[in-house]
Amino acid sequence: MIFSSKLIEDAVEAFTRLPGISKKTALRMVLHLLKEDKDIVHHFSNTIAKMREETCFCPECNNISDGGLCAICKDATRNKHIICIVENIRDVISIESTQQFNGLYHVIGGLLSPLDGIGPEQLLLSNLIPRLAAHEVQELIMALSPNIEGDTTVYYISKQVKHANLSITGIARGVSFGGELEYTDELTLARSIVKRLPVDTYVKTSG
Amino acid sequence: MIFSSKLIEDAVEAFTRLPGISKKTALRMVLHLLKEDKDIVHHFSNTIAKMREETCFCPECNNISDGGLCAICKDATRNKHIICIVENIRDVISIESTQQFNGLYHVIGGLLSPLDGIGPEQLLLSNLIPRLAAHEVQELIMALSPNIEGDTTVYYISKQVKHANLSITGIARGVSFGGELEYTDELTLARSIVKRLPVDTYVKTSG
Repeated sequence: MIFSSKLIEDAVEAFTRLPGISKKTALRMVLHLLKEDKDIVHHFSNTIAKMREETCFCPECNNISDGGLCAICKDATRNKHIICIVENIRDVISIESTQQFNGLYHVIGGLLSPLDGIGPEQLLLSNLIPRLAAHEVQELIMALSPNIEGDTTVYYISKQVKHANLSITGIARGVSFGGELEYTDELTLARSIVKRLPVDTYVKTSG
Repeated sequence: MIFSSKLIEDAVEAFTRLPGISKKTALRMVLHLLKEDKDIVHHFSNTIAKMREETCFCPECNNISDGGLCAICKDATRNKHIICIVENIRDVISIESTQQFNGLYHVIGGLLSPLDGIGPEQLLLSNLIPRLAAHEVQELIMALSPNIEGDTTVYYISKQVKHANLSITGIARGVSFGGELEYTDELTLARSIVKRLPVDTYVKTSG
């Protein structure tokens, strides 16, 4: 693409650095911003700059924070005796959006994967152990991806907190709601049959 | 989606205002920028703000410009006796990218469409007539969309410049290169057969 304006070219270039943005999409965005009011575009660029400048990581749970403790750790109404272990901030947002969990989180920043060079020291676990005692944590929910790396990480963390005398649970695994059995992978289906539940629990959960 | 950070929420909100960006895509972009260096994010937001602040429209041809005349109008090596009429800046970029045109442009900013309330006074034509005399323009190329609005606009402009004694041409219409006849619409195919060309011209054009 040949642009007759250096400013436009730079802006398109800036947008294409974002994930999943082609040059055509970037141009569409730039031309959209060009048509917008100057104030709106200023607000856009300031919001992005401010977001990067002012966000930091919560020293307790490693979640993203607007300064100091994150909104979840600060919230007095939340149950501090349950901690949900998640891989990243995106998982916190996903679980929060379900509005079904009222405990705290602990973001570990990755999953154990020796082949990719990610060992225990790369995970953000050092501040987990002190939290367990400080908040008298009774339950640790492992909400990690259901794959080999996730399971290895669950195993590793379980071993680390063994002495803390708390119940360790994992999120339920089985067929997805609304999914069709025909298209469910064999492993999931096999496990779902072996670990079948009384129909009562379905009713209880959704009621 | 529920975000535990107001800054993140605002940034996601800002991105979703861009065309074709869903909340999920916006979040992906925000989390990408969050991982980037602060300098890079500052450069990103400054580039966008500067683009909106400093670009203006070329007083000659209505193309986007970095200040005063646009790069194309300023370029002394271009043939000032041919002007290509296009609808918008995007079309200038498309034609420039072909590297096959060395004349000037005139962006008219829209197509005549009485049903949408776009009449001749909405088109940026007032500065076209003075240009024709000033540059002794010999040819006017109509590169407008091949639809009813485009054809109406071509007809209107042709009538307006009738007295100027110049040749008025339109971009060639026919089947697309690499297209399959089977999937070409009837109207285009019918016209392509009626307006068939000697095979020589194909060879000349591509040689």
